[in-house]
Amino acid sequence: MDASRWSAAEARRAIRTGEWTGPTAGLAAAHAQANLVAVPREHAFDFLLFCQRNPRSCPLLEVVDAGRVEPECAAGGDLRTDFPRYRVFQDGALAGEVEDAAPLWRDDLVSFLIGCSFSFEAPLLAAGLEVRHLTERRNVPMYRTVRLTRRAGPFRGPLVVSMRPFRPAEVARVSEITGRYPRVHGAPVHVGDPAALGISDLSRPDYGDAVTVRDGEVPVFWACGVTPQAALLAARLPFAITHAPGHMLVTDLPCSGPFPGDDV
Amino acid sequence: MDASRWSAAEARRAIRTGEWTGPTAGLAAAHAQANLVAVPREHAFDFLLFCQRNPRSCPLLEVVDAGRVEPECAAGGDLRTDFPRYRVFQDGALAGEVEDAAPLWRDDLVSFLIGCSFSFEAPLLAAGLEVRHLTERRNVPMYRTVRLTRRAGPFRGPLVVSMRPFRPAEVARVSEITGRYPRVHGAPVHVGDPAALGISDLSRPDYGDAVTVRDGEVPVFWACGVTPQAALLAARLPFAITHAPGHMLVTDLPCSGPFPGDDV
Repeated sequence: MDASRWSAAEARRAIRTGEWTGPTAGLAAAHAQANLVAVPREHAFDFLLFCQRNPRSCPLLEVVDAGRVEPECAAGGDLRTDFPRYRVFQDGALAGEVEDAAPLWRDDLVSFLIGCSFSFEAPLLAAGLEVRHLTERRNVPMYRTVRLTRRAGPFRGPLVVSMRPFRPAEVARVSEITGRYPRVHGAPVHVGDPAALGISDLSRPDYGDAVTVRDGEVPVFWACGVTPQAALLAARLPFAITHAPGHMLVTDLPCSGPFPGDDV
Repeated sequence: MDASRWSAAEARRAIRTGEWTGPTAGLAAAHAQANLVAVPREHAFDFLLFCQRNPRSCPLLEVVDAGRVEPECAAGGDLRTDFPRYRVFQDGALAGEVEDAAPLWRDDLVSFLIGCSFSFEAPLLAAGLEVRHLTERRNVPMYRTVRLTRRAGPFRGPLVVSMRPFRPAEVARVSEITGRYPRVHGAPVHVGDPAALGISDLSRPDYGDAVTVRDGEVPVFWACGVTPQAALLAARLPFAITHAPGHMLVTDLPCSGPFPGDDV
């Protein structure tokens, strides 16, 4: 069956069992996907404040209390196994990647689930727009920029963006459509000249894969949930676990909401 | 001079000097107003999480770190003096109200500034709609409801709503206009029958003043920044300071943004 039509639970099961190991762009396309940042409880206030101060890159879908691994937004799910790939940070550096975080998990980890821009790609496709990294079956390209996030405690650093190329005539519609989804990064933060963000070479992304940018196309940039990984390095935390860029949790939430808390 | 046309700094000065002591509805109408919740640092994570989980009632404009009293959103301002009236909570109960919080302020207080629905009243007036409590020169009526907030640590309790009556033919337009301002509570959370929210008598609000509801008008309800005051009682904190309902900080922020962090 076409993996874009899987239910959220089917997608999580395929990831948990190792049937699906790659990036999650296009997977179970009706559902919002989430980035992960799990930090020890003593750093949770500062990280939550970092999210509050940087809402474009860190739109929170859910905060899972320490000691819990099943999010409300993913019934029957498990934060330790339901991402295809994780990054482990130790002593302020990236220590490695794993496919199963269960052996490393700690009871004092507070988990932050941040909306992912893969979630607005189905509406773009439905509007007849091409999403290049889906066409080319690659991970989305992501870049560190010279735009600085707003600091919270030890968390600070560059805004990280994802990029999708479009024709100039499509940019307004792309902005309008993605702007309807603020919980998964919303409208672009920049259109055009990569140098204005300090990006010198689109063919060499800092995370993910390069995609083709055709003559006459302009790069369009969105705030990205990998931004906290740059902030984690700056904060030099003793321990943290994140998703690997592009390798997300598929939540039960419909891309366009409603989201928990919308009525309170 | 018409106080609705004051600059934000003029409004804060008038409040600080005691020239203005009443509710702030209609004051410096071009600027977003803010509710205050200041809690000791040890409770700041749980309260910040309460705001994240209840974004309609607690849309954060800014979190001011412990030890600071000048918000970024109110240049030259002082959280201890620039609200017309404060409430002081001690040992889990409301201990009293003061006009100057400076003598009570503590260096360990983290201050949360939450958007206020007074901020979208100018756009309603500009659209030719009547805002009843402005017409009647009263504070807006506010009610505790039976709708429960989403718990975070010790913070829990009922959603508190503000109410403005409109004619049925106006409700869609009122919803559309206020929906453009999510950082100051956005669209209504309920239209019509107060009993559905557990409100038995509109003429007896729990906070603020009753206003006239004319024959044929329907009450329209918005999530309200007084909601945290009900949660503070439930949490039984040893100490906290809030604004008095209806007595806000006038910020420098334009009502419709941009807001700090919109680009990161």
